[in-house]
Amino acid sequence: MASTSPPLKDELDIVIPTIRNLDFLEMWRPFFQPYHLIIVQDGDPSKTIMVPEGFDYELYNRNDINKILGPKASCISFKDSACRCFGYMISKKKYIYTIDDDCFVAKDPSGKDINALEQHIKNLLCPSTPFFFNTLYEPFRDGAVCVPTAASHGLWLNIPDYDAPTQLVKPLERNTRYVDTVLTIPKGTLFPMCGMNLAFDRDLIGPAMYFGLMGDGQPIGRYDDMWAGWCCKVICDHLGLGIKTGLPYIYHSKASNPFVNLKKEYKGIFWQEEIIPFFQTLTLSKEFTSVQKCYIELSRLVKEKLGTIDPYFLKLSEAMVTWIEAWDELNPPTKHSSK
Amino acid sequence: MASTSPPLKDELDIVIPTIRNLDFLEMWRPFFQPYHLIIVQDGDPSKTIMVPEGFDYELYNRNDINKILGPKASCISFKDSACRCFGYMISKKKYIYTIDDDCFVAKDPSGKDINALEQHIKNLLCPSTPFFFNTLYEPFRDGAVCVPTAASHGLWLNIPDYDAPTQLVKPLERNTRYVDTVLTIPKGTLFPMCGMNLAFDRDLIGPAMYFGLMGDGQPIGRYDDMWAGWCCKVICDHLGLGIKTGLPYIYHSKASNPFVNLKKEYKGIFWQEEIIPFFQTLTLSKEFTSVQKCYIELSRLVKEKLGTIDPYFLKLSEAMVTWIEAWDELNPPTKHSSK
Repeated sequence: MASTSPPLKDELDIVIPTIRNLDFLEMWRPFFQPYHLIIVQDGDPSKTIMVPEGFDYELYNRNDINKILGPKASCISFKDSACRCFGYMISKKKYIYTIDDDCFVAKDPSGKDINALEQHIKNLLCPSTPFFFNTLYEPFRDGAVCVPTAASHGLWLNIPDYDAPTQLVKPLERNTRYVDTVLTIPKGTLFPMCGMNLAFDRDLIGPAMYFGLMGDGQPIGRYDDMWAGWCCKVICDHLGLGIKTGLPYIYHSKASNPFVNLKKEYKGIFWQEEIIPFFQTLTLSKEFTSVQKCYIELSRLVKEKLGTIDPYFLKLSEAMVTWIEAWDELNPPTKHSSK
Repeated sequence: MASTSPPLKDELDIVIPTIRNLDFLEMWRPFFQPYHLIIVQDGDPSKTIMVPEGFDYELYNRNDINKILGPKASCISFKDSACRCFGYMISKKKYIYTIDDDCFVAKDPSGKDINALEQHIKNLLCPSTPFFFNTLYEPFRDGAVCVPTAASHGLWLNIPDYDAPTQLVKPLERNTRYVDTVLTIPKGTLFPMCGMNLAFDRDLIGPAMYFGLMGDGQPIGRYDDMWAGWCCKVICDHLGLGIKTGLPYIYHSKASNPFVNLKKEYKGIFWQEEIIPFFQTLTLSKEFTSVQKCYIELSRLVKEKLGTIDPYFLKLSEAMVTWIEAWDELNPPTKHSSK
């Protein structure tokens, strides 16, 4: 372990949705042990999650979530990794890093272990440049028109996190190309956000990092991070915040079952033909000056414009409101900056 | 030399604005010799440009340009590398590659010589994806919403092509990072185009690739490629065409003099504070369905909106119209596709 104090040690929580694999924390020990972990158990609360010694952590299962949120717990998904967003809400830190338990330490082209968290922190602390495309890839340079960075989207080597149809068509595809750069995603451009290796600033964008209604009792799964990414991007564009993508890489060890995935995704695959144009064309008026206000307005638009696709979106729209109410209850406005 | 026929051998011209350095063509011989070169001499027409044996080329100096274009030659810059755009106009090929004479063959991380032209051709022949940000960097994949690629913007190792103030502040900065990717520049996002290592499809975007009025008799220099890049990008966005940036790299061997550059640039540095917002906010109505129509409309807007900054923009606006007239004269509409 490094002898100097790890960056943002007291300002960052690591949120993990269940840990099925004990090797996971052992592998990350040199990088994660200094930080506080929030583990959100996604399935049966009677099962015990084993955490190796030496880690500082808190663990929440479904019973805990129900106890803490009461009826508002309805906005947190069950039996789906989307439940992780409860960890974003319960955290009291400024920064969150979230990672899946099948993501291991990757190596850079020189063979050195990549400290993913350290790179995410660099990304978050360095401004973004969403208004102009920097062909030399520098995320920031003096004099550039820049904005605070709200989120850092890291990538993955080995198994790509594809949708089920792509998994079926390209079962052997592996990502081996290490692209040595970090890019600000330009203003007005959406992107497919993946929750496997993601860091963000709770104060800046936390209330929009809602992973939706997925899994148990819902007609859809696996769109949790995509949904959060679309919502966050339009709100960041509106509020003048940046989202970066690129470094750091993690090593994604195992592909999920494409047939199971297809079942979870197939409605999403239809629906996104309307969801994406919805996000591409929506505008938020100037009166919406905080993430919460933007998100409530977004929930209204989801009801109005997507409600006709399927009753699911009416339920989702209500859950978005419940999520903000629960967020504000756990994070009273006096505590965090209200832009 | 490769034994197979080089790609697009009969469909691509290489345009070079003057050759001061005989090593330049020797170094590129393995890659360029199969292609036809168009050399546009930027300075004194009485000086002779030496071209090594074995190259197939045509050379135009100022006298030739005056003879061919008559009074319309006024739109072609003199004593500035912006004159290269005459080569775009006189070419009869579908594709152009343009490169500066201080750009040499770069090596990839494995030490192999990079065939820049081959990579540009790959970029141009593969569609672009300007509507969505692909986090895995693939320029194109089946099923993605894609558009034809109009231009491929290559990068450079060693000396960055900075503006004079940045050159002065960071005189020792060298670009050594090889970023192994090609990206579509998203719709609605401008970028700083560099003409040192650039390929494009004349049929798709040629008439917008005008390098403006620079150098001798003009109050500004060095903004030739920037200007063309802004114009091309807004027209590509409007017509549903893509521009890519990234690979291939060339090796930029020498920095130009920052003091000389500052003198050429300083008006541009002021003016771009208004020029960039002008391009960021302008919209072209649906009636403008060809590059030529878009460009004439753009010239009207330049006169209307930028003419108040300096009389230079009135002259530039007229030159833009002259350029299109000359283009259409040399490239009668029956010959090339009018979108």
